Amino acid sequence: MTPVYGITQGDSSGIGPEILLKAYAGRELRPAFVVYGDERVLDYYIGTLGYNVRLRLINAPSEYEPEVLNVIVGSSSTQYEITPGRLNRESGAAAREHVIQAARAALAGKIAAMVTLPMNKESTQLSDPGFVGHTELIGEVCGATDVTMMLASDELIVTHVSTHVSLVEAIARVKKDRICNVIRLTSDALRRIKSVSRIAVAGLNPHAGENGLFGDEEAREIRPAVEWARNNGMKVEGPFPPDTVFYAAVRRKQFDAIVCMYHDQGHVPMKLLDFEGSVNVELGLPIIRTSVDHGTAFDIAGKGIASTKSLVKALEFATRLVDAHGA
Amino acid sequence: MTPVYGITQGDSSGIGPEILLKAYAGRELRPAFVVYGDERVLDYYIGTLGYNVRLRLINAPSEYEPEVLNVIVGSSSTQYEITPGRLNRESGAAAREHVIQAARAALAGKIAAMVTLPMNKESTQLSDPGFVGHTELIGEVCGATDVTMMLASDELIVTHVSTHVSLVEAIARVKKDRICNVIRLTSDALRRIKSVSRIAVAGLNPHAGENGLFGDEEAREIRPAVEWARNNGMKVEGPFPPDTVFYAAVRRKQFDAIVCMYHDQGHVPMKLLDFEGSVNVELGLPIIRTSVDHGTAFDIAGKGIASTKSLVKALEFATRLVDAHGA
Repeated sequence: MTPVYGITQGDSSGIGPEILLKAYAGRELRPAFVVYGDERVLDYYIGTLGYNVRLRLINAPSEYEPEVLNVIVGSSSTQYEITPGRLNRESGAAAREHVIQAARAALAGKIAAMVTLPMNKESTQLSDPGFVGHTELIGEVCGATDVTMMLASDELIVTHVSTHVSLVEAIARVKKDRICNVIRLTSDALRRIKSVSRIAVAGLNPHAGENGLFGDEEAREIRPAVEWARNNGMKVEGPFPPDTVFYAAVRRKQFDAIVCMYHDQGHVPMKLLDFEGSVNVELGLPIIRTSVDHGTAFDIAGKGIASTKSLVKALEFATRLVDAHGA
Repeated sequence: MTPVYGITQGDSSGIGPEILLKAYAGRELRPAFVVYGDERVLDYYIGTLGYNVRLRLINAPSEYEPEVLNVIVGSSSTQYEITPGRLNRESGAAAREHVIQAARAALAGKIAAMVTLPMNKESTQLSDPGFVGHTELIGEVCGATDVTMMLASDELIVTHVSTHVSLVEAIARVKKDRICNVIRLTSDALRRIKSVSRIAVAGLNPHAGENGLFGDEEAREIRPAVEWARNNGMKVEGPFPPDTVFYAAVRRKQFDAIVCMYHDQGHVPMKLLDFEGSVNVELGLPIIRTSVDHGTAFDIAGKGIASTKSLVKALEFATRLVDAHGA
């Protein structure tokens, strides 16, 4: 049976729905998929942006049919106003519900993987003040707490010991146990998608601490984690000076992935290398989930100018993970 | 009168002397220059690596003559053993003395600028336990304390609020006064070498703190520094999310320079973009000093395979600064 994927349309005030329609109309999305979304929102953007897309409302992924855009509508869909580029309480709540629906469908094996388009944190917080992000929401639905975000492009894969926390807090999270977990999640994911996987672990401090001269986290936390991983059969080296390890991986092809100690250590080089083409993959879940690597982009929402590249890549990457799982 | 530059040969166990000879023999070093070094060391590498270079010992830069390699020998030169790739107390001490000589010559106006080849911190600490690095040594000779390191390539220029300190200490140094100083030094340097200079200031935290959600250094220290600089006529914007500002500067050409909050924020993207071609420029000195952006590379020293690119760029960049000063 051909696997069917699920794509969440994201916040209706952002660029999610329009890039979904643009990519679909342009036949950039090859695999069979259903949309977790709202036909009123999709109709709105079809009308204002003139995409040649036919919608079909269905109740379950098993009803998927080719040559139309199959949409599974959320139960709480209401007749709220569609406001491109503006915070909207109802669209924030709807986007949250679509993600929960898709995650449950993935858990139940009804879709092969879920691909998410951007939510807006502030919109969703208007109805759910405790909302943090996709990662936490999907983790909750799946009962998974030990997750990490992998950022992947054609040139490089990075994972992170922490992401959306202050740099002070990020340093506090550089602990052996957490680093071991992230190395393990990275190694497991790479084994699925690469025949050989060589992982580098970056240091935290300049020159990886220069033998303790500029910080001791390398000796105290990072090196013991690398040793643990090597003793457990993972192909991993480090800690390396951050400013040379990216060069070694990208230009010299010495590594397939880099475990980063904080958000910007990985994000600065990834965005510089491929701003629109990188994909987020959540590791540590019982389901497969990939995501575009951009936000709602309210400044250009509703204009039809947003790039579809990251969505196309996110769906492609999901198919690679699904194929590898089946193999 | 044609300006004469001074190049220090660096630690004799490292790649400094050989890339100097290789670049000179290959006619890659166009401006008139004298070497602060040791003719025995240069003779050794000429012999072992077979470069066609003729040396001439002189006592002062005014004795410079073309078509030979003019060498000013340090007063403490001794007959120490030359040990490529190995720590050597005498070569560390000699390298230190050459730097002091060159800095004094630059201060006295005898050379137009100094260009430094790599010292080895450990070698030099064998005779001078308090030795920290070129920057501090030259600062001391010049009586300058408020200095910063600029890293420049053809694509981008970055400066740093701190460099060789732990990440914990780097965060502690993100203070308004220091950031103001670094913005001012960056702006002054750029005005000399660019007709228009647009400076971006990076945030410290992911997403530049996302409105205080991931840290408050942006609001507390960085934004006030940017406002101070703007009120003082500098063309500067920020703080920007670190992971998009490099893309904006390099790919979209929106900025000429980025003021970075810590070493790796600037060094990771710079090394990824141009590993061998970037140049260090010390800002805040009464003299002009540029430096190669690499170390002694003991692992390949004495083999003749090290790249001359950074040395060539460092000398070129010094000439640009000298020309701009004279203009």
